[in-house]
Amino acid sequence: MEYLQQSFSVKFEYKVFFTSGLFELANTGINDFLQADSTSASVKKILFVVDEDVLKATPHLADKIRSYFAIHTAAQLIPEIVLMPGGETVKIDESHFSKMLDVIHQYAIDRHSYVAAIGGGSLLDMVGYAAAVSHRGVKHIRIPTTVLSQNDSGVGVKNSINYFGKKNFLGTFVPPVAVFNDDQFLLTLSDRDYRSGIAEAIKVSLIKDATFFEWLERNTDALVARDMDTMKYLIKRCAELHLNHIAGLDPFEKGSSRPLDFGHWSAHKLEQLTNFKVLHGEAVAMGIALDTVYSNLSGRLTIAETRRVINLIKKIGFEITHPFLEVSGKDSPILIGLQEFREHLGGELTIMLLEQIGVGVEVHEMDAQLIKQAGDALRGEYAGVSVG
Amino acid sequence: MEYLQQSFSVKFEYKVFFTSGLFELANTGINDFLQADSTSASVKKILFVVDEDVLKATPHLADKIRSYFAIHTAAQLIPEIVLMPGGETVKIDESHFSKMLDVIHQYAIDRHSYVAAIGGGSLLDMVGYAAAVSHRGVKHIRIPTTVLSQNDSGVGVKNSINYFGKKNFLGTFVPPVAVFNDDQFLLTLSDRDYRSGIAEAIKVSLIKDATFFEWLERNTDALVARDMDTMKYLIKRCAELHLNHIAGLDPFEKGSSRPLDFGHWSAHKLEQLTNFKVLHGEAVAMGIALDTVYSNLSGRLTIAETRRVINLIKKIGFEITHPFLEVSGKDSPILIGLQEFREHLGGELTIMLLEQIGVGVEVHEMDAQLIKQAGDALRGEYAGVSVG
Repeated sequence: MEYLQQSFSVKFEYKVFFTSGLFELANTGINDFLQADSTSASVKKILFVVDEDVLKATPHLADKIRSYFAIHTAAQLIPEIVLMPGGETVKIDESHFSKMLDVIHQYAIDRHSYVAAIGGGSLLDMVGYAAAVSHRGVKHIRIPTTVLSQNDSGVGVKNSINYFGKKNFLGTFVPPVAVFNDDQFLLTLSDRDYRSGIAEAIKVSLIKDATFFEWLERNTDALVARDMDTMKYLIKRCAELHLNHIAGLDPFEKGSSRPLDFGHWSAHKLEQLTNFKVLHGEAVAMGIALDTVYSNLSGRLTIAETRRVINLIKKIGFEITHPFLEVSGKDSPILIGLQEFREHLGGELTIMLLEQIGVGVEVHEMDAQLIKQAGDALRGEYAGVSVG
Repeated sequence: MEYLQQSFSVKFEYKVFFTSGLFELANTGINDFLQADSTSASVKKILFVVDEDVLKATPHLADKIRSYFAIHTAAQLIPEIVLMPGGETVKIDESHFSKMLDVIHQYAIDRHSYVAAIGGGSLLDMVGYAAAVSHRGVKHIRIPTTVLSQNDSGVGVKNSINYFGKKNFLGTFVPPVAVFNDDQFLLTLSDRDYRSGIAEAIKVSLIKDATFFEWLERNTDALVARDMDTMKYLIKRCAELHLNHIAGLDPFEKGSSRPLDFGHWSAHKLEQLTNFKVLHGEAVAMGIALDTVYSNLSGRLTIAETRRVINLIKKIGFEITHPFLEVSGKDSPILIGLQEFREHLGGELTIMLLEQIGVGVEVHEMDAQLIKQAGDALRGEYAGVSVG
């Protein structure tokens, strides 16, 4: 059959900045970025969307943003700071997405103007999606406020909302134009939220970087004590591994492989089963524990390395399993979750397991009996592993 | 400010196939494509969405599709053939977009499966958008049925729906995985629809290819007589120029330049003012006439070349202007349309005009008085230009 061949490449570039006090008047970082980013001779606008809980924890934030852009004028601030709930709610209830379209329309945010979102991963996902589809893409700046979003989801290229009760049913692959990681936001986090974000660092170390895993083992106490320099290193190294992975083979995930989803197949199901009462990072920690023990039971990972992983997870302060992860029969929710993950990937299951600490391996089947044994072990022998 | 630099390229490739009788059992083209396109070991599904009017004009189409995939089994056909209205309605009324999400969900179309749309540009726009955002992108096959969609919109990388009463307010840049141009669909078009698509060929010839313009001049009679070989050449050359343009500098239109929008700023407004009673191609023909005469009046294009353009437009059978394009005062709708186009581009106006046939030039201002004069000339002296 006769044809014309279309072929082109699109280059995507953005910086992930690390700063402290983004809206301090003396900090010219975001203004410098806006100045340099010009793609049009016209005036650029910037609209801010802020997580309500972040605003509660940082009460002068809205005033600070307004004062900042009164002095730094590379972009024209829309005076209304739009407030949104954080957490999964903002992705579940479509009215928040509609509201974002409303304000983008109301303030005539165009393809040369910016929508900046300040909040956790869920808020960034939803706002990023609204920005990506309005006018086929207005510019999106991410200002992640949690450990999890600063080291993982916030630096990536995906956005989404839930639909039909399905997580991330609607979304796109559209990179932000910039990410600003401000360590001052970390001070506002509860211990539980702070801890939760460490799970993705454990995950990425296990599949990519044994040296980083060893660093995590050595720095557990400082992390638990919320030492800022330690956390800043963790975030930067985790973000770097994440960025390098994306820039690798398959940025927009055209294949079936999802190496960064190590530990996530059961975590997604657990979050949903608990109505997101179990935080993403907490679920991922349990998912890592499950797939690590499974890696051992299926003959891939040594028992000594398995114990090191479980021990680190526990020392950070995570639970290693949950009643909903128990396999009691073939209709157990967690096995249904495995089937859903297979469907999510498009029919062919691809699961990352561990061969060594720092070395992942992909498999295309998981054995229900071994999943059950791994869960039993986490409730049994590993419950007693030393955390000293 | 400290930062990590992210930088990667994504390659986009797809073929625009030219065929006759896509679903004839002996035509293995689409099955061969599906066979070769595999990104997963699992069974791929294919869901068809068809313009109701195309189905009326091709009554056995649904049966043919079912018979075809009963024999050619590279993908598993979803037995329901989804019907949608054609024309702008399908982009205006959001229920059609929602229905698309419903069926993608209902039939569990995943990122390795296909949504194929058979219809004109509007239907392809809407279905393409639904496919692009479901699961962050299921595979989309376009089967354009009109001259316009086969030579222009259907071969490109954009999709969209209208929102807030604004054309293409929501959309993405996501290429299809393949386009199949089947000349048999052209036989079902009314003369008016058939003619309408020729406007984009005139447009692209004027800004890109004087030789193609001369070919159009020589082949006017054959085009009006609907000679198939002549139309097949027109579609292929126009699609080729369109594809080459996209693959050029700015596939996802990050800048303000829209060379392929020559003649479109007034056309968009005219379509809207007439509630889409004036077809897109008809409006584009009038928009080309306006901007061509404007190019002459502003000292860019010779009078001889201007007359050739107007003459070609008239010989093809288009009107060259419309009462809504008249400038009677500074609030005339067409001047408001110019302002809206400026906003659509993000504040900086960029309009393509002509220096010569085949050579465009971008300007950043248009003079209201000259727009009025151009309109007056189209209703006056050019109304009488020979069409012999």
